[in-house]
Amino acid sequence: MSTIVVKFGGTSVGSIDKIKSVAKRVISEKEKGNDVVVVVSAMGKTTDLLVNLSKQISDNPNKRDLDMLLSTGEQVSISLLSMAFQEYGYDTISFTGLQAGIRTEGSHTKSKIVDIDIEKIKSYLGEGKIVIVAGFQGVNENGDITTLGRGGSDTTAVALAAKLECGCTIYTDVEGIYTVDPRLFPNARKLDVISYEEMMEMASQGAGVMETRAVRIGCKYNVPIYVALSSEDRKGTYIKEYQKSMEENVVTGIAINDDVLMVTIANIVAEPINVAMIVEKLTNENINIDMMSQSAVQNGCVNISFAISKDDLHSINKIVDEITSTICPVEFEIESNLSKISVVGIGMKNQSNIMSKLFRILADNKIDIKQVATSEISISFMIDENEKQRVVEVLGREFNL
Amino acid sequence: MSTIVVKFGGTSVGSIDKIKSVAKRVISEKEKGNDVVVVVSAMGKTTDLLVNLSKQISDNPNKRDLDMLLSTGEQVSISLLSMAFQEYGYDTISFTGLQAGIRTEGSHTKSKIVDIDIEKIKSYLGEGKIVIVAGFQGVNENGDITTLGRGGSDTTAVALAAKLECGCTIYTDVEGIYTVDPRLFPNARKLDVISYEEMMEMASQGAGVMETRAVRIGCKYNVPIYVALSSEDRKGTYIKEYQKSMEENVVTGIAINDDVLMVTIANIVAEPINVAMIVEKLTNENINIDMMSQSAVQNGCVNISFAISKDDLHSINKIVDEITSTICPVEFEIESNLSKISVVGIGMKNQSNIMSKLFRILADNKIDIKQVATSEISISFMIDENEKQRVVEVLGREFNL
Repeated sequence: MSTIVVKFGGTSVGSIDKIKSVAKRVISEKEKGNDVVVVVSAMGKTTDLLVNLSKQISDNPNKRDLDMLLSTGEQVSISLLSMAFQEYGYDTISFTGLQAGIRTEGSHTKSKIVDIDIEKIKSYLGEGKIVIVAGFQGVNENGDITTLGRGGSDTTAVALAAKLECGCTIYTDVEGIYTVDPRLFPNARKLDVISYEEMMEMASQGAGVMETRAVRIGCKYNVPIYVALSSEDRKGTYIKEYQKSMEENVVTGIAINDDVLMVTIANIVAEPINVAMIVEKLTNENINIDMMSQSAVQNGCVNISFAISKDDLHSINKIVDEITSTICPVEFEIESNLSKISVVGIGMKNQSNIMSKLFRILADNKIDIKQVATSEISISFMIDENEKQRVVEVLGREFNL
Repeated sequence: MSTIVVKFGGTSVGSIDKIKSVAKRVISEKEKGNDVVVVVSAMGKTTDLLVNLSKQISDNPNKRDLDMLLSTGEQVSISLLSMAFQEYGYDTISFTGLQAGIRTEGSHTKSKIVDIDIEKIKSYLGEGKIVIVAGFQGVNENGDITTLGRGGSDTTAVALAAKLECGCTIYTDVEGIYTVDPRLFPNARKLDVISYEEMMEMASQGAGVMETRAVRIGCKYNVPIYVALSSEDRKGTYIKEYQKSMEENVVTGIAINDDVLMVTIANIVAEPINVAMIVEKLTNENINIDMMSQSAVQNGCVNISFAISKDDLHSINKIVDEITSTICPVEFEIESNLSKISVVGIGMKNQSNIMSKLFRILADNKIDIKQVATSEISISFMIDENEKQRVVEVLGREFNL
């Protein structure tokens, strides 16, 4: 008898009929003799509808209240799913994040899981119950309801699996992880297996199937994650520790991210403390900065450029005013209509010639690069959004994806 | 500086605009220098919509899950209302029933408040915050979310006022308490004041403005309750301890209740234990029985008749089968299309002639009575639904209401 955590996203529980299908799918896992914990997101577009309600009251609603509001979405899903199991004759217990003991810290709407009081869930599993947990939410030390931000339900599922020392299946609306987004590159291959490190690069670069945070927890606690289609029984993709036996392609995949803005802050008085203070202000506002570069000193000033998510536009505008009033007067420019392309592969660690091959391909195809950043296992570069389709086709072909 | 609890029902928070109006109304209380606790119900028809979702999965859903589902309704209201206050520049804190420490016991969907951990609320009031509490819900000793059943938000509000030792205003869609439902008797007078005892009779007989439970708590802890229109500033009705100075009409009002079924269980073997066991079965199922009567023994058998709410039809059918299989075979009849009329007045305590006057009026007007029940301060009788309008007009006129 083994334990498994299964997670279903909003699309998979988007209607009463779909909730019934999810119940049947989970029952087949249960009937194999597994103890099952089910994590679910809010039904379909519920979260968007709730956000829209709040926008009718305030452009920038209090985040504690926003969490209070949004968390009702998963609470509806868990209660309906629990009813569905019982209708099929299975015994269940449903928990909100608070009730499941998912303890969090950090800002509202972007909280992080600190720990999970897992004994309660274990004891109900021991009684043979299917345990249903609301994804995306938890409780902070004040007893306030918190939410985990984007990809929060994946994070809940993998964190539960880590505490239960078991595997985690993420049911989704794609068949698994592809070398390239198949909507952009129809010849893309589905991967049977991908390492945590590669998946993190793919996810953080916007591959969209799973969020980085969830994969990072999986990596840290060595949770085997399986990503598969929720609607049908098809072979999915395992995310697990890198092993020699994994596919030996140097480049595993390409991630494409359209949710980027390039920000340039210019005319910063060239004191190292100034840039440090600016970066500190950005991170204090929970703005994720990426692909940062700094110019050489000119006229006693430097410029910095970096990429942010479009969601952080509101916060960044606020910070620029603060910088000007507390550090030094700066100029500020935002470039949109960009895409970030990342070439990812654990094999790149030992093969420095990938970079030269990549630049050669881009040059041969007259593709203009606006910014570059590299990690041990990836190379990312920013291009004009209009070039995206052509770049993906060229790279998919050249790297045999 | 005094404290006040104000409660707004589902109609009063039925849209974003109405939520904004509620916020403005409460702010005017706050600006008078009061500490304010606001209790709200779910927006408009939300509860019905949620019940309807559950019905698409199960005819008889698990009640723990139903409470989990329904409690999201008020959670949405409190978060949106909190955002509205903040948009107007006021500091707030919103709590679900669980977070507010509203501890309950008893069956899911019909739980009772045991106690409230009021210190948390007091401390936020002390900081000058407007405290917003989800009505209708609490938490039991297992940490499960519970709901309080019909009129639950009124109960939450009055119980909070009892713990805070302050007054409670119930804002609603009527102007106050009338001698008779004005839709049936347009000449009905609005009462300036009514005693707890009379209001309990009026409420339990279906006057519909406030539930008995809430009034009973008010009576027990001597909480002054004020019932008033939410949309406009008009004079409402105070519910408080009876005082000689209150209006000295013998009959204070008439309550009309259409939510009644007359149940007759016939052919019960005439052993006292049998009737006791039947009543026990009914109360164990949380069925409220009212106006019970027992026939004389005939052929070694007795019949009992009583009134129940239409909501309990499902439960009563189940029990009759149980009675036949475990106690003795019985026959069973249900009569619908009835109305219950109650004549209420604290002055009736000392004036036995009211009953004869009432029966005389009914006889003179050829009104057929199917069942009668009396309390110290009320006389209730069952009539054919079709006679309702005529009976109300006759009694309203004769008792000068």
